[in-house]
Amino acid sequence: MERRKVGILGATGMVGQRFIQLMHNHPWFEIAWLAASDRSAGKTYGEACKWKLDTELPARIAGMTVMPNVPEGTPEGELPKIIFAALDSDIAKELEPKFAAAGCAVISNSSAFRMTTDVPLVVPEVNADHLAMIEKQSWRHESGGYIVTNPNCSAIGLVLALKPLEQKFGIESLFVSTMQAISGAGYPGVPSLDILGNVVPFIKNEEEKLQEEVGKLLGTLAGDHVEMLPAKVSAHCNRVAVEDGHTECVSIKFKQPATYEQILAAWAEFKPLSDLVHLQAWGHGLPTAPDEPVVYIDAIDRPQPRLDRMRGKGMAATVGRLRECPLLDWKFVVLSHNTIRGAAGAAVLNAEVLAMMGKLDPVKKVAR
Amino acid sequence: MERRKVGILGATGMVGQRFIQLMHNHPWFEIAWLAASDRSAGKTYGEACKWKLDTELPARIAGMTVMPNVPEGTPEGELPKIIFAALDSDIAKELEPKFAAAGCAVISNSSAFRMTTDVPLVVPEVNADHLAMIEKQSWRHESGGYIVTNPNCSAIGLVLALKPLEQKFGIESLFVSTMQAISGAGYPGVPSLDILGNVVPFIKNEEEKLQEEVGKLLGTLAGDHVEMLPAKVSAHCNRVAVEDGHTECVSIKFKQPATYEQILAAWAEFKPLSDLVHLQAWGHGLPTAPDEPVVYIDAIDRPQPRLDRMRGKGMAATVGRLRECPLLDWKFVVLSHNTIRGAAGAAVLNAEVLAMMGKLDPVKKVAR
Amino acid sequence: MERRKVGILGATGMVGQRFIQLMHNHPWFEIAWLAASDRSAGKTYGEACKWKLDTELPARIAGMTVMPNVPEGTPEGELPKIIFAALDSDIAKELEPKFAAAGCAVISNSSAFRMTTDVPLVVPEVNADHLAMIEKQSWRHESGGYIVTNPNCSAIGLVLALKPLEQKFGIESLFVSTMQAISGAGYPGVPSLDILGNVVPFIKNEEEKLQEEVGKLLGTLAGDHVEMLPAKVSAHCNRVAVEDGHTECVSIKFKQPATYEQILAAWAEFKPLSDLVHLQAWGHGLPTAPDEPVVYIDAIDRPQPRLDRMRGKGMAATVGRLRECPLLDWKFVVLSHNTIRGAAGAAVLNAEVLAMMGKLDPVKKVAR
Amino acid sequence: MERRKVGILGATGMVGQRFIQLMHNHPWFEIAWLAASDRSAGKTYGEACKWKLDTELPARIAGMTVMPNVPEGTPEGELPKIIFAALDSDIAKELEPKFAAAGCAVISNSSAFRMTTDVPLVVPEVNADHLAMIEKQSWRHESGGYIVTNPNCSAIGLVLALKPLEQKFGIESLFVSTMQAISGAGYPGVPSLDILGNVVPFIKNEEEKLQEEVGKLLGTLAGDHVEMLPAKVSAHCNRVAVEDGHTECVSIKFKQPATYEQILAAWAEFKPLSDLVHLQAWGHGLPTAPDEPVVYIDAIDRPQPRLDRMRGKGMAATVGRLRECPLLDWKFVVLSHNTIRGAAGAAVLNAEVLAMMGKLDPVKKVAR
Repeated sequence: MERRKVGILGATGMVGQRFIQLMHNHPWFEIAWLAASDRSAGKTYGEACKWKLDTELPARIAGMTVMPNVPEGTPEGELPKIIFAALDSDIAKELEPKFAAAGCAVISNSSAFRMTTDVPLVVPEVNADHLAMIEKQSWRHESGGYIVTNPNCSAIGLVLALKPLEQKFGIESLFVSTMQAISGAGYPGVPSLDILGNVVPFIKNEEEKLQEEVGKLLGTLAGDHVEMLPAKVSAHCNRVAVEDGHTECVSIKFKQPATYEQILAAWAEFKPLSDLVHLQAWGHGLPTAPDEPVVYIDAIDRPQPRLDRMRGKGMAATVGRLRECPLLDWKFVVLSHNTIRGAAGAAVLNAEVLAMMGKLDPVKKVAR
Repeated sequence: MERRKVGILGATGMVGQRFIQLMHNHPWFEIAWLAASDRSAGKTYGEACKWKLDTELPARIAGMTVMPNVPEGTPEGELPKIIFAALDSDIAKELEPKFAAAGCAVISNSSAFRMTTDVPLVVPEVNADHLAMIEKQSWRHESGGYIVTNPNCSAIGLVLALKPLEQKFGIESLFVSTMQAISGAGYPGVPSLDILGNVVPFIKNEEEKLQEEVGKLLGTLAGDHVEMLPAKVSAHCNRVAVEDGHTECVSIKFKQPATYEQILAAWAEFKPLSDLVHLQAWGHGLPTAPDEPVVYIDAIDRPQPRLDRMRGKGMAATVGRLRECPLLDWKFVVLSHNTIRGAAGAAVLNAEVLAMMGKLDPVKKVAR
Repeated sequence: MERRKVGILGATGMVGQRFIQLMHNHPWFEIAWLAASDRSAGKTYGEACKWKLDTELPARIAGMTVMPNVPEGTPEGELPKIIFAALDSDIAKELEPKFAAAGCAVISNSSAFRMTTDVPLVVPEVNADHLAMIEKQSWRHESGGYIVTNPNCSAIGLVLALKPLEQKFGIESLFVSTMQAISGAGYPGVPSLDILGNVVPFIKNEEEKLQEEVGKLLGTLAGDHVEMLPAKVSAHCNRVAVEDGHTECVSIKFKQPATYEQILAAWAEFKPLSDLVHLQAWGHGLPTAPDEPVVYIDAIDRPQPRLDRMRGKGMAATVGRLRECPLLDWKFVVLSHNTIRGAAGAAVLNAEVLAMMGKLDPVKKVAR
Repeated sequence: MERRKVGILGATGMVGQRFIQLMHNHPWFEIAWLAASDRSAGKTYGEACKWKLDTELPARIAGMTVMPNVPEGTPEGELPKIIFAALDSDIAKELEPKFAAAGCAVISNSSAFRMTTDVPLVVPEVNADHLAMIEKQSWRHESGGYIVTNPNCSAIGLVLALKPLEQKFGIESLFVSTMQAISGAGYPGVPSLDILGNVVPFIKNEEEKLQEEVGKLLGTLAGDHVEMLPAKVSAHCNRVAVEDGHTECVSIKFKQPATYEQILAAWAEFKPLSDLVHLQAWGHGLPTAPDEPVVYIDAIDRPQPRLDRMRGKGMAATVGRLRECPLLDWKFVVLSHNTIRGAAGAAVLNAEVLAMMGKLDPVKKVAR
């Protein structure tokens, strides 16, 4: 199978680097185009980027020229039709629609359009059916392009743990207190003087995002929009001195009674991607999907970011410490890798599902 | 005024060291006796102790001989009648009663007797009236001795923030998710491999202690026991890579409506020690009591342990980020220094209040 | 005695904040003027500054208006004649001469003029006599103003440890390998992604500064210039995950034989400020000078930044681990607080010595 | 090819865990036997071990029963003839000879016998020829067993960088200042209160080991012993808040002149394992040997532990910052992963070379 050419917007940032790391040897996608801000455009990627990952920057990527982050900056025919976007929200708001209008499938990690009515906010294991909304987007009708988003890094691990519980028991309300890694703030991001030996009990807009995105992710597709799950969510977001991996303490109240064993069973049985008809037709698994999206660790003091963030190659959410809550019903801890599962890996998995659904195929297939 | 001689049990540990640091130049108390386990007894304190504080070990203390941690190990008449205890819980359970039986006022930081019916569990600003329970203790009747305890390090900052809210609005239920400093686990305590770049979402028995101690601290003295506050408390306790200072995220539901301004006013007006009749008679303040036990910091990202733990010489609880809670009524963050306000300083303040109440005076005053 | 009014250039940065912390209650100096970049000018200090110290920002200072960082920005007569400067080097190069030309004693922490021939580079305990060079400066003759500098933060602790050894044994050559705290890079300074769980074996220009400044500091005043000490110095500079306190490993070769006891004695006897004739006349000590500028800690694993940086209120250099060197003569470790002894405190101490010498008195005393 | 059965002594410690991680899927070796102290013996490995690595403990290993750490504890015929030893030095001194006497090839990471005359201290890229000394060991003659050691974790990266320089230019003397990771101290190892936000400028016996081991590693095999390289080595060893990866600052003096380009070339051309005749006969590479044992990183601020420790799957030494030294000839920085290249990986590579040399074959091949 020939690999599809893809581009990366915001390629020099922390999430852009993860895109490169995750897709450099991807069986379906080939990185063919890199773009970044004017400061970087025109340089080679190796010159423009402060590579901060612990694997080597691939030599082929290092030698690629960074393009301007607009569709017009690239010669006709050379702009890939699949664009992964790792832009700051305010820039994304301006640029992503330009790429969708140019006929690109924009697989975005930014928050700019997550809550927009006809833009799917998707974690494939949780709500792959919401991807159908791309057909309602005006760009889709005009150029074949569209925008698909993945959630905030703190929401992804959480909804993976919540989805099987919502299916089985119904969620009425929940409290979540996060301890988030510094890589979530990009580079240079959090000054070391703010976080070394310290906790910062505030991340701008994070609690709002977490609270509202959970509602959309667990909501129900209703034609051209999503009916939000009406569960009450209260989030406390904190930054801690951890490189990668967001840890979240959760208390939850269900609509129906749930026993300890039933909850563990719900997590253990949660393998939704194997059930999707579109996917079975494909004949094999998604390259980036973990075997088990939710892994319960039966140890008194887990999950922990340093030990558990790389489960499922960084794509699994690990849960632990399930115990009764004196106020709601149950308490537990959930952890996920914030720049893999929580950002670049989430977008790549969205793209893989779109590929299986035929939504990355050339435009002509799209009928009005 | 002559200073009262005091002793310290468990003097070589982290809390023992704080006792020494806080009382070395105390205007009312003079450190006259130090005891530790058999491994240390007989050595000078300088030899026995790995001093881990950032102030110098005072030379006079370094030269003192460490005594065995039993009353009988000290010649008649040389055992101080005021004993600060910084022992592990299981050892405290055995040793503290011996000192109480020997006529000592045992001011304990351990958890061994906190929930015992006739043992006061006290934070002076919160429930100094509970100290009256010492008169119900059998040791008191027999030898004049008694045991008074202060709460767990994670409970102290919290109840300081809660008390004025309970008084004004009544507390129905609350969540608290903690991010606790490593010094709370003593020395050697937390292995660095467990906490550097990591979070450990578990501290043994901590959630249980926090949940039950809040009920007793905010409870009502009813003759010979305390009627627990019936509020529901759900705690999530975590260890983070912070040297000193416990940060706690709180969501709270009140019995009566409370506005933002009313809550801030409740904290600002909370200066309970100035109201105690016994204390006014004394004519001046308690050496270790902070001017403001609860300080609200009006900044979007505070309190933070590195910046705020030393407010009020480490004895103030700082609060911040008051905002509405989608699930309960209000959310906020509270921080306190875990080995000063949360341990040694708490015990010293208890002793100061006892001194003001005449409860450190010689035994003969005690009538059956 | 009336306190002299002083101003602070670059008042909102990390060193500027230390200036405020150290001089807020200074017995000789009164902070009367604060200046910073255009971004801050016109705001109150409380608005302009992200206060990052663990003591509270004094309310009086918080309410002061930040002035532009040029002499002309302040009404005639209101510009203090004593200016502490905490500017980046390239800005200092432009601005400090303007203040000297305006008749100010500029007590600078920047590197801009440290190696300029007629500018004293001074640590009072090491080379207070070099201060005489201010009389050679053209500003001094024209307006009464002058510039005095203190060394780089990594050089100060080192030269304190070296000076008594140079006096007694003569220094032929030395290695120094530093492990420097993040606060030395200012705020936001070092990104947390670069230093958490990491070491950065490079600090821009630091090795060069350290190598050359040692030569001038230990050099000999020769009329209008300093003859550099001809010792060979080789520096390796590293950034580590420490908030405050630079730790330095030193190997040293002497011109004359030195025994273990002689070296310890040289450090113990090193109390040079008590010997200065000008100072004795004053009748009492310098407020910021530590009793012992060099303290040897006789423990196998000291000095350590967290435990020892605050010795002498952050103004002492602590040394330890003196042992034979298989390559040169002796090895030891030296530590000092980089933003107190190594920056703001160093400048304040320079100013105190200048005050004792009469060099902060009004201009009219200066004859050509 | 059938995999050879191997055992691990001290299997539950940090280096023991790395042995398991590195050999779980090894093409030549099969983990067949695990032993640990009496506290662990009899339990399953999963019960006995606090697994602290960020890959999962393999299920097969978790289910194995931990044996007592003596040869007699295992039924006749079930004790593997290849034993990897990760024991504390004093225990190794007693136990390793027992296994050698029982006919085992003991591949040891401990310091107990490193400096013993007839025990090879080997890094294959540096001095594989020293392995011949096993034939001089009395155990070899009696039972076929022998002991081979690898160096201290801080010496390995250093000698890799030094060997090509010694070959080309001759080393006269060197200064090395280390910043060592906490994992080097095992688990629980360094208390977090000692290292968080701190530096400990002392590691017991480390400077002595580093200084003497370099001499033996770079020495010349002379029949039944090694003539030590007479270079002077001065080491300063420090512990820093890094999880894995030892960073070392080096100044070096050569016997012959060396240019910048010549030094870089020496490192680039250093691929010694491809030259060994024994190895070529084998027809393919050693599974654990890195393609490039010494990698120069041409960036101003590298190597850094977080970014570079995993080069060559954790088996490469990375060097950087080559620059002139004002005192000796050249300065540079070298980094290596302390528990892979510096411990378990080093031992596994030693075993692979021994396998290629036929020294892991059954005893009968050994003639007196």
